[in-house]
Amino acid sequence: MSGFGFDIAATDGAARTGVITTLRGEIATPAFMPVGTGATVKAMLPEMVAATGADVVLGNTYHLMLRPGAERIARLGGLHKFMNWPGPILTDSGGFQVMSLARLRKLSEEGVRFQSHIDGSEHMLTPERAIEIQALLGADITMAFDECTPFPVTEDEARASMELSMRWAERSKATFKPEGGRALFGIVQGGIYPELRQRSADALKEIDFDGYAVGGLAVGEGQETMLGVLDETVPALPADQPRYLMGVGKPGDIIGAVERGIDMFDCVLPTRSGRNGQAFTREGPLNLKNARHADDPRPIDETSTCPASRDYSRAYLHHLVKSGEILASVLLTWHNLAFYQTLMAELRDAVRAGSLAEYTQQFNALYGKGANSCEE
Amino acid sequence: MSGFGFDIAATDGAARTGVITTLRGEIATPAFMPVGTGATVKAMLPEMVAATGADVVLGNTYHLMLRPGAERIARLGGLHKFMNWPGPILTDSGGFQVMSLARLRKLSEEGVRFQSHIDGSEHMLTPERAIEIQALLGADITMAFDECTPFPVTEDEARASMELSMRWAERSKATFKPEGGRALFGIVQGGIYPELRQRSADALKEIDFDGYAVGGLAVGEGQETMLGVLDETVPALPADQPRYLMGVGKPGDIIGAVERGIDMFDCVLPTRSGRNGQAFTREGPLNLKNARHADDPRPIDETSTCPASRDYSRAYLHHLVKSGEILASVLLTWHNLAFYQTLMAELRDAVRAGSLAEYTQQFNALYGKGANSCEE
Repeated sequence: MSGFGFDIAATDGAARTGVITTLRGEIATPAFMPVGTGATVKAMLPEMVAATGADVVLGNTYHLMLRPGAERIARLGGLHKFMNWPGPILTDSGGFQVMSLARLRKLSEEGVRFQSHIDGSEHMLTPERAIEIQALLGADITMAFDECTPFPVTEDEARASMELSMRWAERSKATFKPEGGRALFGIVQGGIYPELRQRSADALKEIDFDGYAVGGLAVGEGQETMLGVLDETVPALPADQPRYLMGVGKPGDIIGAVERGIDMFDCVLPTRSGRNGQAFTREGPLNLKNARHADDPRPIDETSTCPASRDYSRAYLHHLVKSGEILASVLLTWHNLAFYQTLMAELRDAVRAGSLAEYTQQFNALYGKGANSCEE
Repeated sequence: MSGFGFDIAATDGAARTGVITTLRGEIATPAFMPVGTGATVKAMLPEMVAATGADVVLGNTYHLMLRPGAERIARLGGLHKFMNWPGPILTDSGGFQVMSLARLRKLSEEGVRFQSHIDGSEHMLTPERAIEIQALLGADITMAFDECTPFPVTEDEARASMELSMRWAERSKATFKPEGGRALFGIVQGGIYPELRQRSADALKEIDFDGYAVGGLAVGEGQETMLGVLDETVPALPADQPRYLMGVGKPGDIIGAVERGIDMFDCVLPTRSGRNGQAFTREGPLNLKNARHADDPRPIDETSTCPASRDYSRAYLHHLVKSGEILASVLLTWHNLAFYQTLMAELRDAVRAGSLAEYTQQFNALYGKGANSCEE
């Protein structure tokens, strides 16, 4: 896998900090990847995303295959050029979005046939096609195609789903071409069942990937259960390769997962919340729609280096949100991404300093305990 | 009027180029002022507006008095601080918006009583209140309160409306306090009737303003009629003070008005068109919704210094527009504002070089004559 690598610089308990190397740049871990679903981190210019400290963004196979089409993006020079993001891009395989967005899904050993949620057109995703699409997009990190196991399910259902995903993981690996320093990650499934997670991890290690994701979590099982699954699953993953917890999450989820040895995260929460008038702060989320902000001259965070956090009053942001102004989405998304990247930078510092437990305690003591906790 | 001034550096026929001085910065003329209706140039960060070369933005008395309220903005430190725009701001007086947006208007000698288009609440705008609101906002250039004469109207109706506006202009001047280097502009009315325009200009000169606007145009009378009114009106205005054509306009309108001696413009066209998927180019407007752009790797204008014009393909912009992405509005608004500011800079250069006629001829030969002219 020339061009792709992972070096751990320091550990603190199960937590680690390090650097993932790709041909398009380095990714400091633990890393949060802003979600760029349809070839845009919603409401952001790429330079705004970069200014928050994000090293890598995520693209969605499902959305991009439907619009504007993977072959079209390839003809136009690939996803990096298309969306003007020169840094690393991780693409998911479409497995999760097919389950959550597509219509009339028909699952078979071969793959998933479905109708587009945009125009009803019929499509097929297989491990081979999901890997091909990600190659057309030019992903630096490609995800194996999996079935995102629903929640709740019985252990038998979770086993059958996991075993299908493992067969698809093998087909993903067989068809993947590690050209241009590209990496391929496998995805551990198995629902909330420790034995299934262990077997899934073993199966993936047997196939041999460049990194290992934990999928099928943050789907309604709750933080305690999710962290419990990580307690069981992470030790079964190779210590010297990146670990990615997919679709997670709230600040507390991320901190708990970092404590358990996770290196990478993605979530729509900072971007989606921003478009809904919500701003993350150390004391918990603020709802800028709330009239109590209408005369508040304070910025969201005057200590931030992000202009959105520092240069606009809460009164102004309230006004923009109430008025339905595009700038509300722009500023609050930007602030939230900066908040998440600052959190990740502090977690990296804490691991390096061996003070993660202290950091976590301080964070949790403040977060959600302020006057704003009711606003989430 | 310490702090406010106007110096003409060069003329070319009736056209002139110069600098308006305010305590908050200089305005190179002819100037285009992006419209920041509700304390935001829609979809733009202030630094993006500044990067296009805009020296001054416009704020709307009508919108801001209704939401978030002029007294609130004053308590928060004024409009500049509120919207994070440190440069000059011109505010209109609300006369035009009351006519075009408010409900249940009741016009009297005193002013206009109306209901908010936002929540139906009842409000009153008088010359005294319009000037007070603009002082609360902290406008660098304040506009007299006027009645925007509808179109079409009879000459008698236009005369009565103009005469009311002249009485309101006198009351505006009487209540205005030229503190902090603030300037007050009068507004010429009179519809399409040369004699009324002449009498309106004379009345305003008698009152004595820092600058003179031409109002009540671009309301459906067509470019030829509009420029005809300017031919009659501009010579009646003082030569050594700024002249502002309100609410105009298309590139060709602006060029024609500069040729006739206008120094300042504002219009929602570049911002509104951007949110509707339209991009201005030298060959005419492009409609990025059009499927013919889906595979076009060219940027809108590779020679531009604006990132929005230069760093994104038409194919990408088409994708964003089709997907309803916020970034479509951001990039196309930014491009259009850059296009307008480049046009103004070139007009200033042409006047300085004495080559305005040549520039106009070249611009008009290209604009609207390209493959895109049908897309407007």
